[in-house]
Amino acid sequence: MDAVQEAFGMMAEETLDPSDWADVQVLSHRVIDDAVAYLSEVRDRPVWREMPADVREFFATPLPRSPASLAAVYGEVSRTVMSYPMGNIHPRFWAWYMGSSNFTGALGDFLAAVQGSNLGGGNHAAGLMDGQVVNWCKQMLGLPASAGGTLVSGGSMANIIGLTVARNTKAGIDVREHGVAAIEKPLRFYGSDQTHSCHRKAMEALGLGNRALRRIPTDASLRIDIAALRAAIAEDRAAGFKPACVIGNAGTVNTGAIDDLRTLAKLAHEEDLWFHVDGCIGALIAIAPRNAYRVAGIEWADSVALDPHKWLHAPFEAGCALVRDAVAHRKTFAVTPEYLESTPRGLASGEWLHDYGLQTTRGFRALKVWMALKEHGVDKFGRLIDQNIAQAGYLAGLIEAEPLLQLVVPPTINIVCFRYQPGLAGEALKALNTEIMLRLQEQGIAALSDTTVHGEHCLRVAINNHRTRREDLDLLMRETVRLGREITAASPTSS
Amino acid sequence: MDAVQEAFGMMAEETLDPSDWADVQVLSHRVIDDAVAYLSEVRDRPVWREMPADVREFFATPLPRSPASLAAVYGEVSRTVMSYPMGNIHPRFWAWYMGSSNFTGALGDFLAAVQGSNLGGGNHAAGLMDGQVVNWCKQMLGLPASAGGTLVSGGSMANIIGLTVARNTKAGIDVREHGVAAIEKPLRFYGSDQTHSCHRKAMEALGLGNRALRRIPTDASLRIDIAALRAAIAEDRAAGFKPACVIGNAGTVNTGAIDDLRTLAKLAHEEDLWFHVDGCIGALIAIAPRNAYRVAGIEWADSVALDPHKWLHAPFEAGCALVRDAVAHRKTFAVTPEYLESTPRGLASGEWLHDYGLQTTRGFRALKVWMALKEHGVDKFGRLIDQNIAQAGYLAGLIEAEPLLQLVVPPTINIVCFRYQPGLAGEALKALNTEIMLRLQEQGIAALSDTTVHGEHCLRVAINNHRTRREDLDLLMRETVRLGREITAASPTSS
Ligand SMILES: Cc1ncc(COP(=O)(O)O)c(C=O)c1O
Ligand SMILES: Cc1ncc(COP(=O)(O)O)c(C=O)c1O
Repeated sequence: MDAVQEAFGMMAEETLDPSDWADVQVLSHRVIDDAVAYLSEVRDRPVWREMPADVREFFATPLPRSPASLAAVYGEVSRTVMSYPMGNIHPRFWAWYMGSSNFTGALGDFLAAVQGSNLGGGNHAAGLMDGQVVNWCKQMLGLPASAGGTLVSGGSMANIIGLTVARNTKAGIDVREHGVAAIEKPLRFYGSDQTHSCHRKAMEALGLGNRALRRIPTDASLRIDIAALRAAIAEDRAAGFKPACVIGNAGTVNTGAIDDLRTLAKLAHEEDLWFHVDGCIGALIAIAPRNAYRVAGIEWADSVALDPHKWLHAPFEAGCALVRDAVAHRKTFAVTPEYLESTPRGLASGEWLHDYGLQTTRGFRALKVWMALKEHGVDKFGRLIDQNIAQAGYLAGLIEAEPLLQLVVPPTINIVCFRYQPGLAGEALKALNTEIMLRLQEQGIAALSDTTVHGEHCLRVAINNHRTRREDLDLLMRETVRLGREITAASPTSS
Repeated sequence: MDAVQEAFGMMAEETLDPSDWADVQVLSHRVIDDAVAYLSEVRDRPVWREMPADVREFFATPLPRSPASLAAVYGEVSRTVMSYPMGNIHPRFWAWYMGSSNFTGALGDFLAAVQGSNLGGGNHAAGLMDGQVVNWCKQMLGLPASAGGTLVSGGSMANIIGLTVARNTKAGIDVREHGVAAIEKPLRFYGSDQTHSCHRKAMEALGLGNRALRRIPTDASLRIDIAALRAAIAEDRAAGFKPACVIGNAGTVNTGAIDDLRTLAKLAHEEDLWFHVDGCIGALIAIAPRNAYRVAGIEWADSVALDPHKWLHAPFEAGCALVRDAVAHRKTFAVTPEYLESTPRGLASGEWLHDYGLQTTRGFRALKVWMALKEHGVDKFGRLIDQNIAQAGYLAGLIEAEPLLQLVVPPTINIVCFRYQPGLAGEALKALNTEIMLRLQEQGIAALSDTTVHGEHCLRVAINNHRTRREDLDLLMRETVRLGREITAASPTSS
C-alpha cells in the first residue's frame, strides 16, 4: 500500500469537469445560438455538398495526446461536422428512409447525457419514463396494455428482438440452452420479396440462416401474395420444416407497400405461426386519422417493430420493439448475474430493463421521444404523417401531369418512385436518371435515392420530413426536368 | 388526385419547428444554465434518493393528445427526471460498472442531434468522424491500422459483433446462408467463470446456445485457469466438437481480474481458435502509463470489445468493436439491398457503415467521444484511469486498517470487494451488509452494489468515476462503520 499511497500523493486528483464552469456556460450559450440559427435557416442552405479535401484530411489526424480548449474543439466541429451534414434535416431531403430530427429532441439528448442515468435498470426516474414511452407506443398502435416492449437502437434491432422471441417461442425446445442445431424440425420464416435487408441480417445473426427466410412473391402493388404464402407454408410442412413466423410489412422500404395485415394475422393464427410486423416505416400510420385504416390488423401482431426516429423524427437513435406476450419477451432475454441481484429497497429495486433485449447498459433515448410527444401532442404527429402522405399524392399528380416524367409505382403512402423518360430504355435510361439524381445532390437542390422496382430502375422520393412543403416538390419537378433536358442535350444518347 | 389535393389544400402545412425560435433560444439558455448548475453542484446533492409517490404516478399518465409549451415540458422534466437520476454522475457512485458522463459529451450529443446525420453510411462528415474514432480506438489499444471496427450501442453489442465474426469465420461453412445447424462439428467457445452475462446472451442470440460457452474455472485471483482451459479444449476435440473461440477478460465485472492475455493469445494461435477480448472494463488501461502492462497481449486479439461509455465517460451509449481482420468483419455483416446502391459521386459515394454490424440507421455517437478526446487529450484519460486504480488501492488500504472491515479480494484494478465483519457468518453477515448498502443509498451517502465472490457475499466498490476523490473514500469508510455499528446495535444478531 505504501508505494501506491506515495505514488498517489504525488498526483493531484484530476477530473473531466471544467476548471471554470462560467467559461463553459458562455460557450454553451453560443452553441445554442448557433444551433438555433442552423435549424431555423436550414432551408436556405444546400441540401448536401461535397466535402473539400482539407476537411476529409482533417478526419485522418491521429489520436490527440494533449488538450485543447473546448472553444477550439467546438470551432473545429462547426467548421467540419456542422458544415457537411448528410442533409436529412433539410426540407428537400427524401433519400433512403429516415426522419429529420427536431430541436426539442436535441435538448432531450443533451439533458439525458447531463443527468446520465443508465437505463439497464434500477429504481430511478429515467427507467420509469422509458417504460412510459413503451406504453405510449402500445397505445399508439392499439396493442393491449399487457403487452411488453423495449426501446432499442432502431428498427433493425427492434426486428431482431421480435424475431428472436419468435424463434425461441416456436423452437419447441430450450433453444437458449441448446442452440438452433438442437431444434427438431428446422424453422421457416416468411416475408415478402420486399422485406428489408435487416431481416436477412437477423436470420443470419440468429443462426437460422438466410435460407430459413422464404421470400414470397408480391402482387402488382408489391404486397405479399397470400396464396403464394399459403402454398409455401404447405410445401414446407410437407418437406419436414416447421413454419414458425410470418413477417408482415407495414410499409416496405422500396415503395411503402403495406401487406394485408388482417389477412396475415388470421393466416398466422390458423397456421400457428408467430405474426411479426415490420412497422418501421408504417406502424405509426395508426395515429394518422386519414390513413390509419391502411395498417388495420397491426394490433393483432405478436410483435411489432416501430421506429420513433422515423415518423416521430426523434434524433437517432430510437427504435421500439413491442411483444404481445410480455412473459415470452422476458423469457427470451432475461439473465440475472450475481452482481445484478435485486434488492427490495434502494437503487436496485427497480426493474432490470436489460432483461428485454441484447444491451446491458442502455441510454436514455426515451427522453427525446417523450419531450416531443408532450410538446406537440400525438394528434399533431398524426397530422404530420397524413401531411407527408398527402404530399406524396401531390407529387404523384405533378409527375403524371408532366409528359417527360413517368410514375413507376403509384404511391400507397409517402414513397414515390418515378423516372425522367425522354424515350430511352435499359442502361441508358438508368444512366440518365442516375445523373439527374447526382446533379440534384451536387447542386444542393434535393436529395433523392434510386432503387429498382419490378426490374425497373427509378428515382425514389421518400417524404418522411416535417419541413417539406408542396413548394419543395414543385421545385423538385422543375429541376428534374431542367437537369434531364440539360443532360440529354449535352449527349443525345444520354450521358 | 383531385380529392387529395383538395384535402391537402384545406390543411396548412405544419412542422415540428417552433413558430418562434427566439422563445426556444431563451429557454435553451436556461436549460444550459440549469445543466451547468446541476453538474457543478452534483457533489452537494445526495447520490440517490427514492422517488415520492407523485413522481412515480406521473409516469403512468397516458399518451398526451394535445400540445404543451416547451417551457412546461421542461418544467416537468426538471421536476421528475432531473431530480431523481440513477446517480452515476455523482462522485460517490460506485455501483455496478459504468462511467459518469461529462458535460462536453452532452454538448456532443446535442450537436449530433441538431446536425442529425444518419451514420448508416453515405458521404458526409459525421461518417468520416465515426471512422476516425474507430481508428483512435485501434491506436489506443495498439491494434494495427489495417484492423476494422465499428461503434455500437455498448459493450454487450461490441461483444456480439466480435463473437459473430468468430462464429462465421470458424464455422467452416457459409453459416450466413445455411445457419448454425449446418455446421459439421458443433462449435465451442471458452471463457472463465467470471465472464460477463452478455456473452451468454450473445451465445443464445447467435443460435449456438448457452452450453456452447464453456465456463473455465478461475484461480485464486479470478483469472482463467490456463491448464483447465487446455484440458477442456482437448476434451472437446476428442468428443467431436470444434473449439472455435476463447474469450479473454481484460477486467471482469465482479472483481476486475485480468486474464493472462499473452498466454491466451499464444494458446489461441496454437489451437487455431479465435481470440476475443472482452475489454469493456479494462481495454483502455492500455492508455494508462502506470498500469498498461496489465493488459499486455490485448494487441494480439482477433477482436476486442471496448466501451468508451465506461472509462472515457462518454454519455451513454458508446461501445466499440475492433476486429483485426477487417475483411472477415465486413463479410460477416455486409448486405447491399437495391435501394442502397452506391454511386461514384454524391451522397451515396461514402462507405456503408451499416455493413459492419446489426444496425441500419446509426446515430452519431462518435461526436461525444471525439470532442472529449480532443478537449482533454488521451494522456489525461490515461492519468484518470491510473487515478481510479490508485484510489482503489487507497480504499483497500483503509479497509485493511479497519478491524471491522474485511477485504474479500485485493483489488487488481479499480474494483474493491469487502464486507463489514463484526464476527458473523452466512445469511446474517449477508443481511447486515445488504442493509448497510441500502442505508448508504437511502441516506444519499454512496451507491455501492453487492456481489458474490468465491461463494462469499460482499459489497463492491467499482471506481469508474472522474469525480471521485480520496476524501469520498474516507467518508465511505466512516459511514460504513457507523451504519454497521448502528444496525448491529439495534439487533444484536444483525437485522
Ligand atoms: C421497412 C424497414 N424496416 C426496417 C428498417 C431498419 O430500421 P433502422 O434503420 O431504424 O434500423 C428500415 C429502415 O429504413 C425500413 O425501412
Ligand atoms: C466485463 C464486461 N463486459 C461487458 C459489459 C457490457 O457492457 P455494456 O453495459 O456497455 O453493454 C460489461 C458491463 O458492465 C462488463 O463489465
